[in-house]
This record gives sequence, structure tokens and C-alpha cells, in this order.
Amino acid sequence: MLHGDRTDLLGDVVGGAEETTTGVIRLRSLAEAGKLKYPIIAVNDADTKHFFDNRYGTGQSTLDGITRATNVLWAGKKVVIFGYGWCGRGVASRATGMGAHTIVTEVNPIRALEAVMDGHQVMPSREAAKIGDIFITLTGGLKAISRDHMELMKDGAIMANSGHFNVEIDIEALEDMSDGKREVRPGVDEYPLGDGRRLYLLAEGRLVNLAAAEGHPSAVMDMSFANQALTAEYLARTARNLAPAVYPVPRDIDDEVGKLKLRSMGIDIDSLTDEQQRYLESWDMGT
Amino acid sequence: MLHGDRTDLLGDVVGGAEETTTGVIRLRSLAEAGKLKYPIIAVNDADTKHFFDNRYGTGQSTLDGITRATNVLWAGKKVVIFGYGWCGRGVASRATGMGAHTIVTEVNPIRALEAVMDGHQVMPSREAAKIGDIFITLTGGLKAISRDHMELMKDGAIMANSGHFNVEIDIEALEDMSDGKREVRPGVDEYPLGDGRRLYLLAEGRLVNLAAAEGHPSAVMDMSFANQALTAEYLARTARNLAPAVYPVPRDIDDEVGKLKLRSMGIDIDSLTDEQQRYLESWDMGT
Amino acid sequence: MLHGDRTDLLGDVVGGAEETTTGVIRLRSLAEAGKLKYPIIAVNDADTKHFFDNRYGTGQSTLDGITRATNVLWAGKKVVIFGYGWCGRGVASRATGMGAHTIVTEVNPIRALEAVMDGHQVMPSREAAKIGDIFITLTGGLKAISRDHMELMKDGAIMANSGHFNVEIDIEALEDMSDGKREVRPGVDEYPLGDGRRLYLLAEGRLVNLAAAEGHPSAVMDMSFANQALTAEYLARTARNLAPAVYPVPRDIDDEVGKLKLRSMGIDIDSLTDEQQRYLESWDMGT
Amino acid sequence: MLHGDRTDLLGDVVGGAEETTTGVIRLRSLAEAGKLKYPIIAVNDADTKHFFDNRYGTGQSTLDGITRATNVLWAGKKVVIFGYGWCGRGVASRATGMGAHTIVTEVNPIRALEAVMDGHQVMPSREAAKIGDIFITLTGGLKAISRDHMELMKDGAIMANSGHFNVEIDIEALEDMSDGKREVRPGVDEYPLGDGRRLYLLAEGRLVNLAAAEGHPSAVMDMSFANQALTAEYLARTARNLAPAVYPVPRDIDDEVGKLKLRSMGIDIDSLTDEQQRYLESWDMGT
Repeated sequence: MLHGDRTDLLGDVVGGAEETTTGVIRLRSLAEAGKLKYPIIAVNDADTKHFFDNRYGTGQSTLDGITRATNVLWAGKKVVIFGYGWCGRGVASRATGMGAHTIVTEVNPIRALEAVMDGHQVMPSREAAKIGDIFITLTGGLKAISRDHMELMKDGAIMANSGHFNVEIDIEALEDMSDGKREVRPGVDEYPLGDGRRLYLLAEGRLVNLAAAEGHPSAVMDMSFANQALTAEYLARTARNLAPAVYPVPRDIDDEVGKLKLRSMGIDIDSLTDEQQRYLESWDMGT
Repeated sequence: MLHGDRTDLLGDVVGGAEETTTGVIRLRSLAEAGKLKYPIIAVNDADTKHFFDNRYGTGQSTLDGITRATNVLWAGKKVVIFGYGWCGRGVASRATGMGAHTIVTEVNPIRALEAVMDGHQVMPSREAAKIGDIFITLTGGLKAISRDHMELMKDGAIMANSGHFNVEIDIEALEDMSDGKREVRPGVDEYPLGDGRRLYLLAEGRLVNLAAAEGHPSAVMDMSFANQALTAEYLARTARNLAPAVYPVPRDIDDEVGKLKLRSMGIDIDSLTDEQQRYLESWDMGT
Repeated sequence: MLHGDRTDLLGDVVGGAEETTTGVIRLRSLAEAGKLKYPIIAVNDADTKHFFDNRYGTGQSTLDGITRATNVLWAGKKVVIFGYGWCGRGVASRATGMGAHTIVTEVNPIRALEAVMDGHQVMPSREAAKIGDIFITLTGGLKAISRDHMELMKDGAIMANSGHFNVEIDIEALEDMSDGKREVRPGVDEYPLGDGRRLYLLAEGRLVNLAAAEGHPSAVMDMSFANQALTAEYLARTARNLAPAVYPVPRDIDDEVGKLKLRSMGIDIDSLTDEQQRYLESWDMGT
Repeated sequence: MLHGDRTDLLGDVVGGAEETTTGVIRLRSLAEAGKLKYPIIAVNDADTKHFFDNRYGTGQSTLDGITRATNVLWAGKKVVIFGYGWCGRGVASRATGMGAHTIVTEVNPIRALEAVMDGHQVMPSREAAKIGDIFITLTGGLKAISRDHMELMKDGAIMANSGHFNVEIDIEALEDMSDGKREVRPGVDEYPLGDGRRLYLLAEGRLVNLAAAEGHPSAVMDMSFANQALTAEYLARTARNLAPAVYPVPRDIDDEVGKLKLRSMGIDIDSLTDEQQRYLESWDMGT
């Protein structure tokens, strides 16, 4: 099975490099606390990893997981996306592409502005809770959907997580609010609330693209794996000279992955001429 | 006049901060050469500047300039975009949104891959030269369109620059190739070639959004100006303690600009709860 | 000047064929009342006219007119489109393509459903009046924007008409509500209301793509004019044998215009093989 | 299982109304041949059927079927769509929305022009055959993909049919060209050609949305079924007064289905005022 798990064990092979932004944040706080025991390369932060895996991979596979679980029609649905990082951007873009009306919630003002100017509606999550048909969490954080939100949702609302662990939706609160649950389709749990409303939780709140679909397509995982493989080889050569800290993927590895990928797709690109290269590097040419 | 000049004089007010990526590159090479005399803050690199001004501003105003100059129909046109940086992305996205068939040329493999996965066609610029209807340079470099390209273009091809100076299109070569020129509409010069083809250069190769339209809308310049104003105030307070080097805009200024902008649009967003904040910062909570 | 006037005088040349849907509706009611004196061909209903002129032409030129009049940034704006006919579809699609958040109002349930499934928000116009930044009428009818709507609009709201005559916005009511007006940019009248709000009317409510831009691009008018010319020639040959009624454009004229247009763009298409043709026409081949 | 079969048996209940355009074409040729024995209502031609079922239903479910069969990444793929009718439009729009580069082939000049102006690339199918990654037939006809095309395809090309019967791809030719076949994933047959290339046929050339996914979502089939049910009821009342011929769905049934659907989605729309209604119907009001 191809997988898009952004916190997978394979990370250990390349020096414990967590793939999620959440993972990298945690490693850095571990390093700052002086508790990191060996050098780490943040593979997730490679351009050929996070620009592609998190955006195009998660974008497509999240919709795929929800479609396979529910066979819902996306056109005309109000889809609420929690978090406008690379994953949220990808999902929002693909949901728009399927004809949905997209609503984004954010805590970061700059990401919120980007979402607005990309054509999405932005509002506080409690406003969005009242009108959404499908809710997708991609925050990398805790309880993006809380009891307060679920109290406001419409009958029939669908909730899925495609961020990281099964902590982005407060499942404990949902269990507490409802009178039992039943699986209405594989991976779709119906939670009847006392007031007649029914809420639907997909894949028990786990990553819906892994649990209900096949994770990222191989055409996007290949770049992530190439980064991991080339970085592991790099660490094998250099680790003994590196202090315990979180490092970026070397620029030339990242570029090499990009070139290999383009070649595999049969796409040629330009090169800078010497004159163009000199111009970009200089401060005394031109106007 | 609102302006979107990305190399404008105002830069001097805030310590010579050039607004183009090209400008920042040059300042850094000046700093590396030990020739920078005072501290610089690279306002262009502020998130609330380059994410918005370069992408949404240049995206819209470049199409606007070309439309006003030519009244061309975008739907169905083959539009060739040189460079897929923030400006190129913006223009490519808006050209797609107007019904054009977009072709991107790049020298950077990662940007080329992004362009492909965003749905644009990517090919070497000499291939693109043969089929394009409208060519737009956004490279920040020299001679993105050279004589070689112009030799291959179709009769009626239109060329515009929205990158930086009037060096992205090799005008000297065009003048040399053609038998005189005539202005067929304001800002549209027709260059007849010996073989019967006619090429059209807009705004003498200068920034087409400034020369043929009104530059960026005020709704995007306001963020750039807010960054410049707040950064100038910051430099006035701190410059004497800063070594001559190129600095980023302080994070809290960038965020403040984002918050002010959202407020002006009447948009509220969420805040992290204390529990969510602790979760993101920790490495010992959760799974 | 190229023009996109959908009720232009040229109509008379080809037998009084009005170009607007509104015009055709009226001619049909004239015919039903027995008051039509001569045969009419409804050029507006030709596929190569209304599919292209009304959708791609009006779509682009309406945004163009509003941009030239106001230099507004479309990204992130709430754009309210009155009417989801061919013109409304075109404008909604292009507004989405420029990064706007689109809201459609309709009286026809099927068009309203299409708008929803195309990803636009659909709501009653009085709800839309409260939240819109830019309002565009494309109904072909009367007072799409009435006093009731204007009472609800936000300070700074912009109104433009791109449907037909200057009757789609109730200007009389606006004049009555406001304390005088002033032209703040060419084609932009500011109406201060007693309560501090200011509303902006573009081009005195006339077709904004004609009044503030250049109308449809030539690349879309060419098909409309080709239909008019070929139909005029057809009428000159056949009119004396036609009863006074409203007729469609002959199928072969419509197809011919399409073929000519493709050829002018250098685009080749397929032809049916004899076997494919027989298959489509038969009921006794295949499953 | 929800189904999107456009030639299903249920048709018989409502007087043999075939749901495909192909079906309706055949019934009309049967009627013209004097061989139709009873009245037929062409449910497929109802606005609330073909605008939605064929466009939004087929659009989504075709991509869904191909994704489930192959787990292919759509972003960056060259997707060739045969036929730009309602189904083709839907698939092309959704493929664009998933980041694909779309190429349309057509035999009808007007549809070809629409495809161009909607931003798709249009070319003869033999040109497209050389460059496509994924080929999807939606023509309702015979051998849209023939041996000639398969001779030109790249190694790894994927073929799927979402038009009507398994005659749109010439499977016999494919079998003849290849040295045996093997099923590499459920519903994915690999055909090795003598020259080292491998072609992939999905679902044995049957409707891929039915064979590899779940057909149309219920949210689109509900409108089709509502048309069938209300039309069956109408025929039960009126059939004995109708001559054997192919009839459209009565306008008021079509509108009623649209209204019911909007109500089920919680969406309100406007109504015409009496003054607006009179204006639209008159020829003596207004300018």
C-alpha cells in the first residue's frame, strides 16, 4: 500500500525525521530543551517533499478517501477546511475544483488572508460549524473540531481528519454527546444526538486518506521517498560530523529530486545562459 | 496613481529596501562584497508583501495592462509565462481563470514541477515560442525573450514584460530584426519582420501593469505600504544598533499588517486555545 | 470601437434581429400578438453567437469595464451576480477566475441549481445585498437591484449593469435616497446616503463593458458579425418566401461560422468515419 | 448500489425512455422509421437530468472510477477527453480542477470552440494520442479510440470509457495488437505490445464510473429518479391520448424537480415581481 502517513516509522531510518510540520515543531522543541541525542534532517521541509506531498498528495487523497467512504457529491457542497497550511491549501484547491463551495478557518492572519484572496470564504469556525456539509481538519493540532462546533452542526454533517493523529476532532466529546453509534458504511460512523440530528465521523477520526483510500499516489510519494533515501545516504556519510540539531535537506539533494522527477515525466526545461546567471548575481549590471 | 513598481524610489525611505526579488538578490551580493554601507530590511520578503503584492497584485494588473493595451480575448489564447516565481504564479493563475491555455517556462526544476502540477503546460522556451499567442516575462532577469525566440514566433505574437526592468525582452534584437515599427494602438508597437510576420511589443518592454494600466490595486498596495511604513518606524528606532546587512521584516510587523488588513475587510478568524497552543509547542503531549 | 451592445442598431440590417435574449422574447411576443410585419432571424440564438459573445465576451469585458472604472482588486471580493443566463455564467466564471468569492441570485430554480453546482453561493438577493462588495446585473429584466437592496448594502458597495438597458438598477430610487452625487473617477458616481453610507454606481447604470471598457474583444465579435452577415445574405435570398415570424439561424450557417473560427485559430479537429456516422444514426447496430 | 447507467432497464418503466443521448437518437430514428409502438418521454433531455446527471455526476464519478482503479495522481497528467458533450464537459472541468492538463478531441466545430475557450487544448485525436497519459471516451459513439490511436500511445497510457457501451474503445484491435494481457490491479488490464510498450485498459472498456466506482452520487441521481417517477405518473395519466413519438419532459415537471432539490439543500431563491414579469413579456415597455 502506498502511504501518505506524515508521521510514519520510516522516519527513523533517516535519523528520526518526522514528516509532519507538527513533528518538526516537536523535534525543534526537543532540540531547544537540549534533549535531542543525534542530528536530524527535516525531510518534510524539503521543497520536493512538502510542496508536493502535502499539497497535491493530500489534496487529492483526502477527497478520494471521503468519496470512497461516502460517495458524496462534492458539487454544491459547503466544505469547511480547518487550517490553510500546505495540506489545507491542497484540499481547498481540489474541493473548489470539484465544484464545492469552500470555507476556510484559520488562526494565522496571513494564511487567512491568502485563503480569502484565493477565493475561499473565511470565517470563525463557530460560524462555519452552522452551515458546513463536510468538515475536514488539517491543522496538525488538537481539537480543531470541538464539542462547541458539534453542538452547532446541521443534521447530516460529515467530519473527517486529514491532518495528523486522531486528535484533531474531539471524538471523546462526540461519544459523550451521542446515544451510541452505528457504522452505516465501512468507515462511516453515524452518531445520533439527542435532538434528532445525526453527525457522521469518517475513519474514526484517523487520517481519512490512509484509512478510507490508498494514501498518496505513488507519483507524489516517489519524491518523498527519494528525499528520504538520498538524505539517509547523506547522513550515513556525514552524521558523525554533525551536532545534535534539526537540519534542512541539502539544497542539491532537493534540486536533484526535482530534476529526476521532471525527467521521468518527459519534461525539459530551460537553463540560464552565462549572461543571465551573471546578471542575477551582480549588483553592477543593468539599470 | 497607485503603483506596483517593484523597484521604486520609495525604497530609499526605508533604508534602500528594493522591492523586487532581483533587488534583494543584488543587495545581498553587495553585502557579501562588503560594500553595503547601512542596514537594510528586505520589505519585499515580508509575507504580507510578496505573497499578496507579487501574486494577486501582479496577477491581476498584468492581465489588466495587456487587456487595456490590446483588448485581446484571453479565452482560448496560448499564454506563455516566463518564470514561475510569485509573480509568474499570479499571472498564470489569473490567465487560467480567464480561459487561457497556459504554458510556463522555467530554469528551476522545483518551480517547473509546481507549474506542471498546478495544471500548466511546461516546456523549453524555444518550443513555447513557436505556439504562443501572448508572451509575458516575469523572471527578474535578463533577455528571457531573446532573438532566438522571436525568430520562431507566429505572426501576430504579443510580448509584454511584467517582471522588472525593460531588459527581460531583448528589444535591441527586435529592433535589429524588423523593418521599422509603428504604434498601432497606444502602447502597442508593431514590428514587421522581413518574412511577413509582425510581432507586437507592449509598453516598450517596460512593466506593462504600470505603463498600460494603473499598477496594483490599492487593496494590495496598502499592505506593501503598511510594511514599509511600520518598518521605517522600526528602523528609525533601531538602525543605530544594526550592522550593515540585509534583514527580514520583523515577524510581529508582518503579522500586524495581516491582522489590520483582515479587520479592514470585516473578517474575523479563530485564536488558538491555551490547550491547543501547549500541544503545538510540546513534544511530550499526545501520541 | 468594437462593441458588445446586445441591442444594437445593426440588428435592423438583418431583419431587425435583436441580439439580446430580452429582444428575442419581445419579438416573439410581438409575433404572437400578430404585429410582426416581416420575418426575423434570431441571430442571438445562434450557437456561435450566444455561447461565445454572451459568455466569453461579456464575461471578460464586464470585469474589464469594472476594473478600468475602479481599479478594484477582485481577489477576495464578494461579487454578487444577478442572473445566471449565458452572460451571468460568463461573469461568474471569470470573477471566480480572478479570485473573487461569487454569489449568484436567480429566479429560475434550474439555473440556481447549476450555479450552486458550479461552486457559486446562491441566496435570495436581499441576503446577498447585505454582504456583497460588487453587484453586477445580467438579468435582461427590470430593477434587478431595487431600493430594497440598496437600503441593505454596505458602505462602499459598487453597482454595475452588464445585462441590457439602464433599467436593471433602479437609478431613480438611488437618486431619491441620496443627498446629491459626485463623480469620483470617470464613470464612477458616488451616492452619499443620509446614514453615512456611500454607494457607487458605474457608467450611470449603462452597459459597463461598453461604457467603461471597449466592449467585447474582436475575437468574439467576429463570430457574431459573421452570423449577422451570413444570415443577412440568407434573408436577402429567402425572405420573400418566409412568413412573418421569428426563425432560428440555419444550422449550416452556424456550423460554418464555427469552422471558419477554428481555422483562423489554426486548430484542426476530427471527422466522423462513415462507420461512426452510421452507428450514431442507427438503432439496430451495437448492443 | 447507486448507479449512473445511462442505458438502464428502469427506462422501461417510463415507457422505454433511454437515458443516453445515444438512446434518444436511436428512439427518434425508430420513430422516423415508423417502428415506434408507443409514446416515449425523453427523460434524459430534462434539464434537471442531463444538466446535472451527465455533467456533475459523470464528471465526478469518472475521475473517481479511474482513481479507485489506478490510484493515479491527476495533478500534472495529460488527460485526453474524447467528446465535449455534457459528459465530456463535466469530466474536463473536474480533471482541470484536480490539476490535470486537459486535451479535448471533437468532431463538432462549435463544441470544439467551446472547449478551446474553456481553456482546454483542442487537437486532432491522432496528435493527442501521442502525448496523453490518460484517455477517456465520452462520445456516445463507436471506436473513438481506434487501433490507429493505440499505435501512437506512450508506454503506460491508460484508457477508460465513460460514454456508453463498451464500444467506444476498439478492444478487439487492442487484443489483436498485444501479446496476451494480465490484470495488474482489480479492473486494470495491462496489454503488452510487441515493441515494449504497455497499454492499460480499465474495466474492460465498460463504464468506468459504474465498474470501478459506485456510479453517480445519490445527490445527483435523486433528480434523475424524480424525473422518471413524475414522468411515469404523467404517462400513466396521459399515455392513451399520445401518439407514438418521442416527447420532452413537461416543463412543469422539470421545474418542480429543480424546486424540490433546492428546498432539500436549504437554498432559497428570488421570485419575479409582477412588474418584472410584465416587463419580460412585453414589447411596449421600456426603451
